[in-house]
Amino acid sequence: MTQNSRAKESRLERGTRALSEIDGKAGENVVNALADVAPDFARYLIEFPFGDIYSRPGLDLRAREVATIAALTAMGNAAPQLKVHIEAGLNVGLSQEEITEIIMQMSVYAGFPASLNGLFVAKEVFAHRAD
Amino acid sequence: MTQNSRAKESRLERGTRALSEIDGKAGENVVNALADVAPDFARYLIEFPFGDIYSRPGLDLRAREVATIAALTAMGNAAPQLKVHIEAGLNVGLSQEEITEIIMQMSVYAGFPASLNGLFVAKEVFAHRAD
Amino acid sequence: MTQNSRAKESRLERGTRALSEIDGKAGENVVNALADVAPDFARYLIEFPFGDIYSRPGLDLRAREVATIAALTAMGNAAPQLKVHIEAGLNVGLSQEEITEIIMQMSVYAGFPASLNGLFVAKEVFAHRAD
Amino acid sequence: MTQNSRAKESRLERGTRALSEIDGKAGENVVNALADVAPDFARYLIEFPFGDIYSRPGLDLRAREVATIAALTAMGNAAPQLKVHIEAGLNVGLSQEEITEIIMQMSVYAGFPASLNGLFVAKEVFAHRAD
Amino acid sequence: MTQNSRAKESRLERGTRALSEIDGKAGENVVNALADVAPDFARYLIEFPFGDIYSRPGLDLRAREVATIAALTAMGNAAPQLKVHIEAGLNVGLSQEEITEIIMQMSVYAGFPASLNGLFVAKEVFAHRAD
Amino acid sequence: MTQNSRAKESRLERGTRALSEIDGKAGENVVNALADVAPDFARYLIEFPFGDIYSRPGLDLRAREVATIAALTAMGNAAPQLKVHIEAGLNVGLSQEEITEIIMQMSVYAGFPASLNGLFVAKEVFAHRAD
Repeated sequence: MTQNSRAKESRLERGTRALSEIDGKAGENVVNALADVAPDFARYLIEFPFGDIYSRPGLDLRAREVATIAALTAMGNAAPQLKVHIEAGLNVGLSQEEITEIIMQMSVYAGFPASLNGLFVAKEVFAHRAD
Repeated sequence: MTQNSRAKESRLERGTRALSEIDGKAGENVVNALADVAPDFARYLIEFPFGDIYSRPGLDLRAREVATIAALTAMGNAAPQLKVHIEAGLNVGLSQEEITEIIMQMSVYAGFPASLNGLFVAKEVFAHRAD
Repeated sequence: MTQNSRAKESRLERGTRALSEIDGKAGENVVNALADVAPDFARYLIEFPFGDIYSRPGLDLRAREVATIAALTAMGNAAPQLKVHIEAGLNVGLSQEEITEIIMQMSVYAGFPASLNGLFVAKEVFAHRAD
Repeated sequence: MTQNSRAKESRLERGTRALSEIDGKAGENVVNALADVAPDFARYLIEFPFGDIYSRPGLDLRAREVATIAALTAMGNAAPQLKVHIEAGLNVGLSQEEITEIIMQMSVYAGFPASLNGLFVAKEVFAHRAD
Repeated sequence: MTQNSRAKESRLERGTRALSEIDGKAGENVVNALADVAPDFARYLIEFPFGDIYSRPGLDLRAREVATIAALTAMGNAAPQLKVHIEAGLNVGLSQEEITEIIMQMSVYAGFPASLNGLFVAKEVFAHRAD
Repeated sequence: MTQNSRAKESRLERGTRALSEIDGKAGENVVNALADVAPDFARYLIEFPFGDIYSRPGLDLRAREVATIAALTAMGNAAPQLKVHIEAGLNVGLSQEEITEIIMQMSVYAGFPASLNGLFVAKEVFAHRAD
């Protein structure tokens, strides 16, 4: 896609493309699950996080997933989203070792339970990928 | 320092070196401030986060600071530490633009107030650096 | 019940009445589940939140449930209580659309994962009501 | 403004109008404070929360501010934003008594410290209004 | 006071006595600060936490303050209340060393920033006591 | 074990002994579950929390478990770890009544949902012990 044609994309188009590149099938599943309860929220989810934020040029996708995995591990109350973003991290080029390092590091900032629970989510994702 | 001599460093020595490289003067200030209330905690702070975690080879310091800035912004209850790690991010090679992107991205995971308060901490650090 | 007889109610009586009006069967279930582990806490739960707070005249029950659904969605660590209060919101006159709006709005203050997880709780409650 | 002309507003125009109606001068101050550190974030703040969410028809502004005051009180880590939204609540028709009730109610869901700290923010806003 | 006369105390009387014993002057200050914004909340604060909870026989006041100092340190968003309860801990017999240990231990469960910020609150209280 | 031989223990040995005394079989299970995803983190978990913190002389294990149960209940996002530490509390001499009191008290600092969810974890642990 040329630079020019991208500029003409709507936020929804740009976000759909970014969501697909980053979250793959998992992003699509979330959008579908919202269809009967809050379809507009599915659209906002594509437009703002993916069409606006992840599409910005100032930080590469690899660093963006480092940030997201760190934050979701530290917050400790969003296991389904952490799972999606561990997948996303692998999709954009982080290794399993790097993801494990990020989650371990969060013990310093959010305590050992946050890291332990994050590591067990990672373990599940890694095992599923190995199938 | 050779690979060999590093292996012989104690956790305290390795942590002191890492703390100095990452946090610079700010890390030293925290250690000094703990001296009369909890000197052992100053030692733990050097040994575990810096001697153990930040010294691990599996993730570069740049990515480690992306993770820490993201988590502290998202948690929203540790402004003094966020300030130290925005400085640290600049010390290990993140640009002001990259740090701003990380903090903005946290609006997706922790809400706009978390990003706003993080951006105002960054603004203060950047202004101070410009002096 | 006359104004006068209400004034003579104990906190426990007033709370029991409010709990039944607001939470219906779900409130009763919580009280029963506490019976063998912390019966006094069941009493406090009736007396303080329902006998004291929800019975106050300065804010109608509809607005009180808006507040509670918003807070529990934003906190993101109390799914069972969010479920009870989505039911409660419907009991005191909020529409499914209004509840969905409240939960979506929390993306601004607590991030998209908080809203997503809240919407999936709402979806479950709404589906159950439709049976 | 006619229904028709509103439909043609951009998200930025609609958000600017909503921000002005709800937050008044305080919203403008936040936007200005972002100008030199993250001007794009000021635009997102206008577009998504105000242009998208607060402009939706399914919940009136009064209920939206009940939700926001409740959430910010409960989260307890966003005092500057709580202050802005207590002002906003007054702007859209909540009484001081109603705001006090919302904040008091949060003691049930987020504990007494969250309510106490919220009440002291409200006290400050109310005193300033009385000047 | 005899067992019998205590049984006849109202929750408010019992809570006032407990608040005075535990929090001393600091508790009184909080109650006074609420007088013009939410006087009923001052009453609830005395009645439920102090009249109901702290007055229960199943856990001594020393252990109750260990629990409260730990929780407020870990939550990290209630510095004024942590300060009051570090004072309270000293009032009911905890040593400065024990309080420091509790706060340091929270690094394991809530991260190093929570402990650091808690230790600096303790340092301030201890210094003030030494005057 | 003599005072002298203890002094010569490594952090790992001291931590292993403390972990076994405090968490029993549950601690061992966590360490084993980490073996294939983050074995170094299992070592850190033994060394820092148990080898460094819980082994310190300034606070007895009973008080340490009061602190941990309180914090994990209040944080409300670490149910597996709360379960382990309710077991640990019983292991180091807390009664079921004392543990119930600690968890109930957290309603004051973190709200009723935190206490309710904590009490249901305790109920499960107590029931399992009674088998």
